[in-house]
Amino acid sequence: MGKAPGEGRPRVVIVGAGFGGLWAAKELAGKPVDVLLLDRNNYHTFVPLLYQVAAGELEAEQIAYPVRSIVRRKPNVRFLMAEVVDVDLEAKCVITREDRIAYDYLVLAGGSVTNYFGLESVAQRAWSMKDLSEAVALRSRVLELFERAAREEDPGRRRSLLTFVIVGGGPTGVEFAATLAELIWTVLVKDYPEISFDEARVILIEAMPTLLPGFDPALSEYTRRVLKAKGVDVRLETMVTGATDREVLLKEGEPIAAETLIWTAGVKANELAERLPAPKGRGGRVVVTPELHLEEFPEVYVVGDMAYLEDGAGQPIPQVAPAAIQQGAHAARNILRAVAGEPQEPFRYKHLGTMVTIGRNKGVAQVWGRSVRGFLAWIAWLVVHLVRLIGFRNRLFVLANWAWNYLFYERAVRLVLK
Amino acid sequence: MGKAPGEGRPRVVIVGAGFGGLWAAKELAGKPVDVLLLDRNNYHTFVPLLYQVAAGELEAEQIAYPVRSIVRRKPNVRFLMAEVVDVDLEAKCVITREDRIAYDYLVLAGGSVTNYFGLESVAQRAWSMKDLSEAVALRSRVLELFERAAREEDPGRRRSLLTFVIVGGGPTGVEFAATLAELIWTVLVKDYPEISFDEARVILIEAMPTLLPGFDPALSEYTRRVLKAKGVDVRLETMVTGATDREVLLKEGEPIAAETLIWTAGVKANELAERLPAPKGRGGRVVVTPELHLEEFPEVYVVGDMAYLEDGAGQPIPQVAPAAIQQGAHAARNILRAVAGEPQEPFRYKHLGTMVTIGRNKGVAQVWGRSVRGFLAWIAWLVVHLVRLIGFRNRLFVLANWAWNYLFYERAVRLVLK
Repeated sequence: MGKAPGEGRPRVVIVGAGFGGLWAAKELAGKPVDVLLLDRNNYHTFVPLLYQVAAGELEAEQIAYPVRSIVRRKPNVRFLMAEVVDVDLEAKCVITREDRIAYDYLVLAGGSVTNYFGLESVAQRAWSMKDLSEAVALRSRVLELFERAAREEDPGRRRSLLTFVIVGGGPTGVEFAATLAELIWTVLVKDYPEISFDEARVILIEAMPTLLPGFDPALSEYTRRVLKAKGVDVRLETMVTGATDREVLLKEGEPIAAETLIWTAGVKANELAERLPAPKGRGGRVVVTPELHLEEFPEVYVVGDMAYLEDGAGQPIPQVAPAAIQQGAHAARNILRAVAGEPQEPFRYKHLGTMVTIGRNKGVAQVWGRSVRGFLAWIAWLVVHLVRLIGFRNRLFVLANWAWNYLFYERAVRLVLK
Repeated sequence: MGKAPGEGRPRVVIVGAGFGGLWAAKELAGKPVDVLLLDRNNYHTFVPLLYQVAAGELEAEQIAYPVRSIVRRKPNVRFLMAEVVDVDLEAKCVITREDRIAYDYLVLAGGSVTNYFGLESVAQRAWSMKDLSEAVALRSRVLELFERAAREEDPGRRRSLLTFVIVGGGPTGVEFAATLAELIWTVLVKDYPEISFDEARVILIEAMPTLLPGFDPALSEYTRRVLKAKGVDVRLETMVTGATDREVLLKEGEPIAAETLIWTAGVKANELAERLPAPKGRGGRVVVTPELHLEEFPEVYVVGDMAYLEDGAGQPIPQVAPAAIQQGAHAARNILRAVAGEPQEPFRYKHLGTMVTIGRNKGVAQVWGRSVRGFLAWIAWLVVHLVRLIGFRNRLFVLANWAWNYLFYERAVRLVLK
């Protein structure tokens, strides 16, 4: 693995090439440190667009980018595809499936996994979209159920095959519900003349009294109306308590006959967080100092979805891409300060606003304290996500796909891949 | 499954939505028959470009097209995703994993599978690219080996990780060897500064004394020279007799230390052919009459790679896309003749020529009795394959990808998908 830490320049190991890890690496490029970036995949995933892969709008390859392409022109940054399974804080080593890698400074940016809140029956059966393979699997699932429904004679069974229950009324749940409804009632309806499309249902379930909790209530209500107009059955103040192969069980009322349950109701920190001997906050996140490192191990920084830190108002910093990006870059700058013998600086989260699409032409946004809705919010969402996507080619292909889908009311990516 | 055969218009069942099956369906569209097209996948695969998916040039979705999109505007053609496992010729039924489907006329267009010629150790370990998932798996394999080599300390092991043995000097073997060599020595070389690229090897093995057997010997020799210049180690008159996890065994000489064996040396008819009580020709292909049906069951047509028929000169009709297309359309027309009470007509194969690319800017072609090589043959290949691809969007995206790769010496699709 090259020279050992201690000789020459300090070695920074970054675990995870998501937003936090990648922006830490970018900040350290060209600086007097040796950087080793690790990820279990050889690509960075643009998570905010995963739901579009699941809905057949985009191809998986278009929202992923090979990490080695990103670090190619950064001579002091190296990449290795490796899964980190543990950290030895005393020995200053990360432990991968194959070997141990020593560090002088460590940035843990392992991200989050789906949180089923202990609902075992749901965890076993639910579909989610936290990575590329899950998104592709969900797309194949939806399309395969239409194929199965096309030859199902029993109307009850057909109805449960064609009922899609999405749990979680946050941005991902709303965005996916809208695009799934459009996939079904504007695209698949042309493909399956043998299916009666009033048998299909998209049900969006949220435990709180509004969609997009935390948003301006007027935007939440607007979102509910837009979804309803698209055919989505929105059920607020509804709790899912379990699932069987054929039903989704609710805290109150009749179970829903449905064979697909899509879970977007929460995340928790990556398994690596559990292994760290450090205090944990909500969702298993590792509590960090305002400088983003562990209290007892100041050379170990934790950023993004894995880290727990409150902002000035005592609110936990949200698990969103901009927070991970800001924290990754900040941790990197604090490492450079430590290397230079300068004092650490506390992290200050700059909230950039939130944007959510609700299918074709519609969106809601809260930016700079303003609430925007409708076409303008939709266009803003498209532009922001296109610009943030890594790689010019990906931007070009995503734009081409969006234009194609928009103009022809199509979804190009309708393959069931096994 | 709708009305039973016998009532109203005759029902034609087509098994397989490859070139043969799809062109049969197109020919029957709008005609006085009910057509049911079956395939285990919900998409048509443009097989001639699979090797480019395996080499990271194209995305899987760009060379596949949903069958339901193709049949959408053909009211008498329906599609069902179903795997046909057997045929009951006496009862006039195909048997899928789920049910039995009756037919009046049957077109069997199940295609071919890889033929390992009884080499069990090879069949267990070899990689091939007969469908999308195999092509994506091979791409991931190649890239993963470079990741493994990047952290391998033992030079001998590293060399065997980076040795790729391609067996079969036909068009697929030649095309893949050339593009793999370019992937390694022009693209990956930029990604892996830690690897010494003279340790990588691409070895193309052919049992016959020339590459592209059957081609003009001058073109074969040109192909060999071009491949050599790209760094491919071409070994003619060499027979592979087996494989272990670390070695490829040869009939004569030392085994090759290599952990990846890619087999393009032959195909045989789909398993369905074995189940048919009909005489078989070379490669397990079903012997058909000149009218393309079974001797004893004139309502059962067999076309494409599954069918065995000799041309006027006593040569077997080759297992290539144009032959499948011509046979599919011809079988469909003979079915319409049978429905109309007209006599069947014999199939006459029109050989359109053969084209092979050898990487960037180079190709060989034999068209209208002429031999062409170099840039012109390469351009001709690109145009023909682009035009034949199904779906305007696919053409657009493939063209954009080709242009991108060509201009920037890149391969966009370098993701290891698990």
